[in-house]
Amino acid sequence: MSTVRVVCQQLAPCLGNAEHNRHLSGEAIRGAATLGAQVVVLPELMQSGYVFNDRQEAFDVSEALDGPTLSLWKTLASELNIIVVAGFCERLEDGQVANSAALIEPEGRLTVYRKAHLWDREKLIFTPGTEPPPVVETAVGRIAVMICYDLELPEWVRLPALAGADLLCAPVNWPDAPRPAGERPGEIVRVQANAAVNRMFIAACDRHGKERGVDWVGGSVIVDADGYPQAGAVSHQQKQVLVADLSLMQARDKTISAHNHVHQDRRPGLY
Amino acid sequence: MSTVRVVCQQLAPCLGNAEHNRHLSGEAIRGAATLGAQVVVLPELMQSGYVFNDRQEAFDVSEALDGPTLSLWKTLASELNIIVVAGFCERLEDGQVANSAALIEPEGRLTVYRKAHLWDREKLIFTPGTEPPPVVETAVGRIAVMICYDLELPEWVRLPALAGADLLCAPVNWPDAPRPAGERPGEIVRVQANAAVNRMFIAACDRHGKERGVDWVGGSVIVDADGYPQAGAVSHQQKQVLVADLSLMQARDKTISAHNHVHQDRRPGLY
Repeated sequence: MSTVRVVCQQLAPCLGNAEHNRHLSGEAIRGAATLGAQVVVLPELMQSGYVFNDRQEAFDVSEALDGPTLSLWKTLASELNIIVVAGFCERLEDGQVANSAALIEPEGRLTVYRKAHLWDREKLIFTPGTEPPPVVETAVGRIAVMICYDLELPEWVRLPALAGADLLCAPVNWPDAPRPAGERPGEIVRVQANAAVNRMFIAACDRHGKERGVDWVGGSVIVDADGYPQAGAVSHQQKQVLVADLSLMQARDKTISAHNHVHQDRRPGLY
Repeated sequence: MSTVRVVCQQLAPCLGNAEHNRHLSGEAIRGAATLGAQVVVLPELMQSGYVFNDRQEAFDVSEALDGPTLSLWKTLASELNIIVVAGFCERLEDGQVANSAALIEPEGRLTVYRKAHLWDREKLIFTPGTEPPPVVETAVGRIAVMICYDLELPEWVRLPALAGADLLCAPVNWPDAPRPAGERPGEIVRVQANAAVNRMFIAACDRHGKERGVDWVGGSVIVDADGYPQAGAVSHQQKQVLVADLSLMQARDKTISAHNHVHQDRRPGLY
């Protein structure tokens, strides 16, 4: 069975500096292509940084879909024949902004997802999305997109899985928090569970680089359809490049025993 | 904050030998009480064993709610002032059987749950339940019950959590399967995720003792409302006794940031 090479580029966006972040993301996409990646995932709000004081500050750095960052990503996707999934601060109408992610295919198709479940002070800044995670039939398989805290809602992860996603790409910015010694960060544990109960691959790309006092798990991870990590899955608060070759077609087989199917075993009439 | 002592008794039921299993479970309940437990959890199908060839074999060892095993558990719950949660093969009408669990309080109240999501050949043997997991207001907190494969359906775990459960007690029989070296068994990972996304404690009691060629994870675990293990969480294919003192009232606080609440953040209109 042929595999798809997926790379997560755990980077440190610089708050409010879109030009710096554009350059950084461009280099990361080129680097992934050099590694042979067919899909590259970058962090949440890669284009803008994360810890905004207020909506105006986010608006000032935000970009529309024809802005310079998405334009660069489109150019590179085409030039390098690579699928790019990355987060950006999307400029909406009336001074509003969304915490969005772009999925860009080499042919130029752009799919945008707006984060529907907002974390903490994001609620004061971003307008939440109202559309389900997209599932895009790409040249390498069906790819879905969601963002960070969305992953903590198993109902939300079910939607693209039921819609047939093989690989869920999730730009994240996981704020660091205490955990018991020796324990894998809970965010990673939830990614594993989401993958296994849906038999769907998941690539979550975290960030590093303290921002206004906030540090990050640095826990980028790529898990297989059984929920076991193929790359990453530790807290590493530095730049890191995750590479995994995934047999995405395994996600089409939802059978887990002679009589069990992770989706057909659901009893929606009871939920 | 006062704590509740919960004990999981990972035992080896003997297939088809209700008398042996009754004795074994009685000793385990007494042992838990000696350890100061207020709640004791025993494995799935503790009363009967698991790997039945067919429905008739299960029927032959099954018991009604006034049978000798539940009668013993009731007597011990009252005598030892302990809450007992344990699995049994329930005799239904017309030759049918259910994979059930009893929650028995010291005052004598019996709550029965019938497994709604059946694993593998269980589908050929047991009649699935059609009622949601019960949430019982006990003297030590609100306790819910479900069984084994039910835990793999996050929608199902949501129901008792939304109904206010502090602690979910889950008798399980987790069949062993290969996993990558160094990885925690996926069943435990899913328990952790279920707990964290609901801020609900979970005590899952597995079994040991190979039965007709089937071996078990032996992965009993007690996790806190953040999803981190307080006891167990390794594959130990032997008898083991897990003890944890849980601040169950922490489950009443669903807040995970200044602006986030694990249940109020759900957007059911979108699911």
